[in-house]
Amino acid sequence: MDTLTHRRWLYQRHPQGLVGPEHYELVTAELPTALSAGEVLVKARYWSVDPYMRINQSLKPTYNALPHALGTVQTAGVVGQVMASTVPSLAPGDWVEGMLGWQTHAKVHHTVLRWLDPSVAPPSTALGVLGMPGRTAWFGLMESGRPKAGEVVVVSGAAGAVGSLVAQFALRNGCRVLGIAGGAAKCQWLREELGLHAAIDYQAHTSAASLAEAIRAAVGGVDVYFDNVGGWISDAVIPLINRRARIVICGVISQYSGGLDEPELGPRFLHHLLYQRATIQGMLARDYLHRMDEMLQVVGPMVQRGDIRFEETVVRGFDRLPQTLQSLFTGDHRGKLIVEADD
Amino acid sequence: MDTLTHRRWLYQRHPQGLVGPEHYELVTAELPTALSAGEVLVKARYWSVDPYMRINQSLKPTYNALPHALGTVQTAGVVGQVMASTVPSLAPGDWVEGMLGWQTHAKVHHTVLRWLDPSVAPPSTALGVLGMPGRTAWFGLMESGRPKAGEVVVVSGAAGAVGSLVAQFALRNGCRVLGIAGGAAKCQWLREELGLHAAIDYQAHTSAASLAEAIRAAVGGVDVYFDNVGGWISDAVIPLINRRARIVICGVISQYSGGLDEPELGPRFLHHLLYQRATIQGMLARDYLHRMDEMLQVVGPMVQRGDIRFEETVVRGFDRLPQTLQSLFTGDHRGKLIVEADD
Repeated sequence: MDTLTHRRWLYQRHPQGLVGPEHYELVTAELPTALSAGEVLVKARYWSVDPYMRINQSLKPTYNALPHALGTVQTAGVVGQVMASTVPSLAPGDWVEGMLGWQTHAKVHHTVLRWLDPSVAPPSTALGVLGMPGRTAWFGLMESGRPKAGEVVVVSGAAGAVGSLVAQFALRNGCRVLGIAGGAAKCQWLREELGLHAAIDYQAHTSAASLAEAIRAAVGGVDVYFDNVGGWISDAVIPLINRRARIVICGVISQYSGGLDEPELGPRFLHHLLYQRATIQGMLARDYLHRMDEMLQVVGPMVQRGDIRFEETVVRGFDRLPQTLQSLFTGDHRGKLIVEADD
Repeated sequence: MDTLTHRRWLYQRHPQGLVGPEHYELVTAELPTALSAGEVLVKARYWSVDPYMRINQSLKPTYNALPHALGTVQTAGVVGQVMASTVPSLAPGDWVEGMLGWQTHAKVHHTVLRWLDPSVAPPSTALGVLGMPGRTAWFGLMESGRPKAGEVVVVSGAAGAVGSLVAQFALRNGCRVLGIAGGAAKCQWLREELGLHAAIDYQAHTSAASLAEAIRAAVGGVDVYFDNVGGWISDAVIPLINRRARIVICGVISQYSGGLDEPELGPRFLHHLLYQRATIQGMLARDYLHRMDEMLQVVGPMVQRGDIRFEETVVRGFDRLPQTLQSLFTGDHRGKLIVEADD
């Protein structure tokens, strides 16, 4: 074969609020399959959709100086299989992971790929528990949250890709864990399947004061708050912090659909930090990329032993990528949300 | 003498907003001068007024579970002289410091007093540079701020008791220091007398955006933000933080006159912590009480050598204590504000 049909989702328009299909364009072209020295041709099998994608679209500087360029393939983690290789370390059929973007195929230098052993865990876990979300959860909790046995850990977005892992890691560290999630079904899953001590459906509350009262009734004060959500949920949690509490800012998903460019207003809360001599720390997965092996050595065996649950919500169809990204901010998925190739 | 005339300021009414004379009552009574074993009779010479006094009046739990009790003497640090003593370690005429409150005399157990050596520094400094504000500034900056030479340190309330010391400690640690203060005169003093690299009069700005632009023009980004003020001044500084910035919450004086009980609204900013992997830490002087000697060993010689400026604004007259406290929140003092005895 000299070429193959190559489909790509280009990021074309900046969203003011919620991101969705109208901000993307699907383009099809022929991709020459010839490889240069060191290159590998990969066929994508699973694409990631992640909340950070919306951060990258903010017009103001974020962790990146510039927003995601318009007219380019949406950046994304991908798990795929090698179709052709110029290097002995990767053979056709091998499973690999890399930041290959929302496209059906990619020609890349072999050094940007991580080889996956499908006997350890399903390859799709390289986008979840054994990938960026797992790294975020592990290092965010252990390095920034510093949980101690007997402490109360509250996790927002507790049914999500990162939150559901944080909650389980906290349980294994001997903590009392309360998850906050949207909907009674997610909360039931958190309690009954993951074994959390408590789970609260924020959708059953109409104010931060009411949510705060429910949290207080369930666990008293809060030693570690692992926050994936921000907004009014954090307004409820922060006044409940205990002495020397650690607040980990892992995500602020409630603010991504517009609030990063034009911040919404919320109650000032820094006096609580003063009272409790507490710490808020922002953390990003990229800061622990060089320690990926360390996480895999600890969490890999947990996954193999079946000690932790890694839920995946799999949507089938490359065409559905933009709408699946949108559903991160509106939808009802559990665990890691991924899109699987049609064929 | 069997009794002496004892004057006390009682905290009588909870302030909704600004605290002032209407919340206090001056009472006079005769105090028997007889001492029990271990007791000392102290005549107050200098009384402290501090922003934390207004925190203690908040109706919601703060670092204390309960607000300052009504009908009791206003808690305060005091420097005085021993009038009579039952212990060999303290003799009449000796200078001492302790939490004796707003009263002209106090009978206390000798263990609550700190003996002062007037040959090291004027005794009033035990309420400022060599007392609680000095301890706050030193440990807040060094332990929570962790300044490195070449970094940019921004101090709000930079002309105040704590801020003016933080700014000078940061200079001695090789940092570029920008002070934020109210009024052109304070800013001139910060630049010309204390040697700060830059000082900005926030009163010359009508919005956080405008103040932020001035800070950015002066120093670019911010590595350490030592915050005594909060509110819209912090709204200006926080979006300017650099990677791994440390924000020290030492005080939130802009919020004390009501905002602790009923928080005002401000722009949500936690996404900046995420972007920059920054840390906010609340700190209180009391956490470093056991390390007072450590601070005195470092800062005492600085004071003796004249290496740092410790400004005092001295108001004369016990009767003026409540109005002097009020002026902390409205007034134009520089450095440590204290009230001196009339006689």
